[in-house]
Amino acid sequence: MQVKLAESYGFCFGVKRAIRMAESHEGSVTFGPLIHNPQEIDRLKQGFNVGLADSLDEIKDNSEVVIRTHGITKTDLNILKSKTDKVVDATCPFVTKPQEICAQMSSYGYDIVIFGDENHPEVKGVKSYATTKVVVVLKPEELLGAELGDKVAVVSQTTRKASEFLAIVNFLIPRHKETRVFNTICNATGDNQDAARELAKEVDIMIIVGGKHSSNTKQLLDICKSICDNSYLIETEQDLELTWFENKKICGVTAGASTPDWVIDAVYKKIKEI
Amino acid sequence: MQVKLAESYGFCFGVKRAIRMAESHEGSVTFGPLIHNPQEIDRLKQGFNVGLADSLDEIKDNSEVVIRTHGITKTDLNILKSKTDKVVDATCPFVTKPQEICAQMSSYGYDIVIFGDENHPEVKGVKSYATTKVVVVLKPEELLGAELGDKVAVVSQTTRKASEFLAIVNFLIPRHKETRVFNTICNATGDNQDAARELAKEVDIMIIVGGKHSSNTKQLLDICKSICDNSYLIETEQDLELTWFENKKICGVTAGASTPDWVIDAVYKKIKEI
Repeated sequence: MQVKLAESYGFCFGVKRAIRMAESHEGSVTFGPLIHNPQEIDRLKQGFNVGLADSLDEIKDNSEVVIRTHGITKTDLNILKSKTDKVVDATCPFVTKPQEICAQMSSYGYDIVIFGDENHPEVKGVKSYATTKVVVVLKPEELLGAELGDKVAVVSQTTRKASEFLAIVNFLIPRHKETRVFNTICNATGDNQDAARELAKEVDIMIIVGGKHSSNTKQLLDICKSICDNSYLIETEQDLELTWFENKKICGVTAGASTPDWVIDAVYKKIKEI
Repeated sequence: MQVKLAESYGFCFGVKRAIRMAESHEGSVTFGPLIHNPQEIDRLKQGFNVGLADSLDEIKDNSEVVIRTHGITKTDLNILKSKTDKVVDATCPFVTKPQEICAQMSSYGYDIVIFGDENHPEVKGVKSYATTKVVVVLKPEELLGAELGDKVAVVSQTTRKASEFLAIVNFLIPRHKETRVFNTICNATGDNQDAARELAKEVDIMIIVGGKHSSNTKQLLDICKSICDNSYLIETEQDLELTWFENKKICGVTAGASTPDWVIDAVYKKIKEI
């Protein structure tokens, strides 16, 4: 099988930074999975004894705690700081930004709209910094009846699609005197999406490698599926199914921002052998 | 001929206000046409001796001067104030607003994008209040190569179509960290446009009554033409041509925000007699 890699894929700046930080704090514990990739979490555990605490209760007093790339809520941060002085903040700076914007815009009296998945840890964290009215939506329809004020500030989950962000903004602008739009979609997400879109046009099958809970990986799957019917999301090369490749000649490969190169390499090699 | 009037048409709040102000200052002179309607300008001259100065040179020192609904530039305002203390500001408050926004956003360091016609007096006036980089555009393509900063503030000429304003904004948002959108399109414009759109669907011919230099009147013509091929812009009933009405049964009538009722009435009566 011929395999083509997307021009841009895999680890983004924020993920690389978080992994470096975790590696340099051996024996620490991360509060929530550091990134949305179970294979990399395992590697950090095996190689650097970096543990994982799923709740604040599991964190021992005065232990060294790494905050995940997606960030945490303001309340959780305060509790964490009351438990330990050794907090290593690996929140992606592109996620810290919308947190700060929410806090500042609320202090200026703006109501807040967050475009994103309300159950995603990044969004929960960002939302927690708003002190005025705040709504989290994925579609414009969800804004009906929201009763927001004249002045609205809008941010996006970093891993979302720009076109869908614009749909939210286009709903707001005619309905409010001022709509202050902060483009908090990160470039890495956009670059990976653009490259996936291009590659999907050229191939018979697309394989997207990434964590099943990763927002940006799921976006990649959506984009590829809209162009190439035979698009599949896998976590490791073990998820590959031979039947997918029957009568196919060229396979495209891309990967989410939290997928390590060693996982992608293994997938690449396995497909080449098909 | 059966004639139907649009549910909303004609004089807006700002025009009514300006005419009241001119009528209560008999013997004054307006700097530029008070509104874009020659018939009403004539009526003010005949009934209230309100004159018209097309340039600052024509304005005598210490004369009473009425500023037109569209506003004037900051420089012209300063020259005017140096000539006379008797300045009556009939600038529509909905136009004063984007002037103030430009001044304020420039002071905060935002570059400015104005959606509108750079030759229209309203836009010239609004633009003059920006002290940072400012561009005036009608289409997104005109923003290519504009080299604006990370933070951009956007206002619209009051009489523009919301859908075209959004096209500009949608171009800016993915390209800038912050796009601060002020919806300065006035409701009266939107209401008249919505009503014209509805009426154009029901009739065989649409007549739009208004000044040929009136931005909002031209928008109404555009909207009606996109729905009803037989749409015509006239200034008075004398512009009506009988051939337009051949084999037509129902005629819709709407009018720009600067068209006085007495002009619309004359048109309405003439069509009814056809």
